Amino acid sequence: MREVAILGVGMTRFGELWDSSFREIGIQAGLSALVDSKLSSQDLNALYLGNMASGTLLEQEHIAPLLMDYAGLAGHHLPAIRIEAGGASGAVALHQGYLAVASGKYDFVVVGGAEKMTDVPDVAANRILGGTADQEWESVFGATLPGLWALMARRHMHDFGTTREQLASVPVQAHEMASKNPNAHYRNKITLEQVLHAGPVAEPLGVFDCAPLSDGAAAVVLGPAERARKFTDIPVRIAASEMATDTLALQHRSSITRLDATVVAAKRAFAHAGKSPKDVQVAEIHDAYSISALLALEDLGFETKGHAGAAFADGTYGIGGRTTVNPSGGLKAQGQPFGAVGVAQVVELVRQLRGLSEARQVAGATLALSHDVGGTGATSVVHLLERMN
Amino acid sequence: MREVAILGVGMTRFGELWDSSFREIGIQAGLSALVDSKLSSQDLNALYLGNMASGTLLEQEHIAPLLMDYAGLAGHHLPAIRIEAGGASGAVALHQGYLAVASGKYDFVVVGGAEKMTDVPDVAANRILGGTADQEWESVFGATLPGLWALMARRHMHDFGTTREQLASVPVQAHEMASKNPNAHYRNKITLEQVLHAGPVAEPLGVFDCAPLSDGAAAVVLGPAERARKFTDIPVRIAASEMATDTLALQHRSSITRLDATVVAAKRAFAHAGKSPKDVQVAEIHDAYSISALLALEDLGFETKGHAGAAFADGTYGIGGRTTVNPSGGLKAQGQPFGAVGVAQVVELVRQLRGLSEARQVAGATLALSHDVGGTGATSVVHLLERMN
Repeated sequence: MREVAILGVGMTRFGELWDSSFREIGIQAGLSALVDSKLSSQDLNALYLGNMASGTLLEQEHIAPLLMDYAGLAGHHLPAIRIEAGGASGAVALHQGYLAVASGKYDFVVVGGAEKMTDVPDVAANRILGGTADQEWESVFGATLPGLWALMARRHMHDFGTTREQLASVPVQAHEMASKNPNAHYRNKITLEQVLHAGPVAEPLGVFDCAPLSDGAAAVVLGPAERARKFTDIPVRIAASEMATDTLALQHRSSITRLDATVVAAKRAFAHAGKSPKDVQVAEIHDAYSISALLALEDLGFETKGHAGAAFADGTYGIGGRTTVNPSGGLKAQGQPFGAVGVAQVVELVRQLRGLSEARQVAGATLALSHDVGGTGATSVVHLLERMN
Repeated sequence: MREVAILGVGMTRFGELWDSSFREIGIQAGLSALVDSKLSSQDLNALYLGNMASGTLLEQEHIAPLLMDYAGLAGHHLPAIRIEAGGASGAVALHQGYLAVASGKYDFVVVGGAEKMTDVPDVAANRILGGTADQEWESVFGATLPGLWALMARRHMHDFGTTREQLASVPVQAHEMASKNPNAHYRNKITLEQVLHAGPVAEPLGVFDCAPLSDGAAAVVLGPAERARKFTDIPVRIAASEMATDTLALQHRSSITRLDATVVAAKRAFAHAGKSPKDVQVAEIHDAYSISALLALEDLGFETKGHAGAAFADGTYGIGGRTTVNPSGGLKAQGQPFGAVGVAQVVELVRQLRGLSEARQVAGATLALSHDVGGTGATSVVHLLERMN
């Protein structure tokens, strides 16, 4: 397999982008990544696009050729492929783009993620989200995504003594980080008290424990690592790209305080790269709910099971901590346009590895990890990104 | 890149499968392909699944892990990836499976295609199909898929003198072929008169010029060609796997009597394999509408532009003709479960190349072509399959 590098990155602002269409945000992200890579559109060989639910959200399927078309590139007749894996769609698209370049079949590939979620009523959106859990065994009985994650939170509190305050420390840090991120959906800081006293969504999770639904798009340009220096002074290598799956329904798993898909994907990724969690200076992890971030830190191997709550509340994962987690603000505060999330995580990490993250820069970062989850963990994807010196 | 071979194939019956769920047909196709390949589930490394619209048809996204789950394989935590490209979803999934094995990352991969379409009212299904054309420029104004293909038919008749009778010869042959196919949705033979006098759908296309909506699933098992003989006496090599895209909306193309995506994908495929159309003994091509098959024969290079109607009516593409087209009965008569079509085409061709097609066997076939189209040609995929001697 060829080594694969990231040559360029780009993204839109995340938020309620009511003045922009799906086509516009998709193109904006893709073209900004292309400009950043210094490639021309003539150089491109294929497009991969992560998107969860354009069929239900927009009544439009077949959206990968649609974006090529509206970017003015239909005349190139390039392969353009949509990938769907719930909230992990973007990261799975990146895995496919990685395989496409690694195979030698395609040299230069754009991987995008895009979702336009705020143009439909919240009740419709929540029904659509239920489609990423098990429709026949969960959603049809009224189990929502927040409700399912709340079950995991309750059990984690019961089994390991994780406190409500520890959970609440996750969104507080997320909003603090996002206050320095001009692309973030929410740039306001929040306090522990605000989180604790916010209205309930699915107890113990309140409004501030749940990431928003957002509009947004992100894109990266991939190419063979041996040609990367032609395009950028600080190329970033994909040191590992691994994914794993699990049962769709929570009730069919042996534990609900552990995502086995994350455990397996992380083990494969660290083994492939010959690295361990202590080598990672900066990570973007799945924090759609406060509990998601704590499970992720444990399942990825940063913490032993049950200890993430205390460690997070102690600032271990803040700026200046052992590993900085979600400097973008994460899904919670940068925002959550489902299909775009996994790609946006990588955009943030590449900028960190290049030293371009300004107020939220993690000093001297050379190895970064991204972690994206679909549904309640039926899909999990882990990428390790390394600065090429 | 490693050479990739097809080690096993399987499919369900196509039709109105009201007594089987999406999960059941997906698993049935996958397991029958696995049994045919002589691999065990322990050998598998990944699943690719082509599906157009489970979100709207079933309110269920994230269906690739769902099928792993219900096949009893969730504990393997394998990558499971859904691909969407309208009616070409299955063939695009095969292209991804091919890249995955070619890259060396995964050795043994199941590629499935599945769609459950007849559980929703026809009006809902047609609205969903409109989502594979351009929703903002076509569907919203009332243009349906049959309507758009009818425009192409009218123009082909005007420009090249193609007759109504020549168009009608396409479904007559399809039903004749399907009468010998136990998996086919329609096994009744029809006459030219029946086609000509059937109720109109979108003139000049009548009921018998349009493929049905079907339920069904199909699967193939891929592996490295150099290990193929371990599993099967007659392995089939993927000699080429190529795809191309075009504008989603018909009005944005320079011609509506030619699918440039097919022209480009076919040129790339024949160049990659060092073959030409005259080397192909058997082909499964996109015949969702009568006109689709004539355009395909021209765009793939079997006929010069404008001549496919006369050639088809003369029996050039029947059993015993120069190249036998759609021995399965095609989308028209074997059936059209959108995401499954591109995989089912390959199932038929592998059986033909192995000499296992009984009453519809094309004698001595060594090179086969499959051609799958999404929407009105925004995606086109061409595979060349070669019997390994």
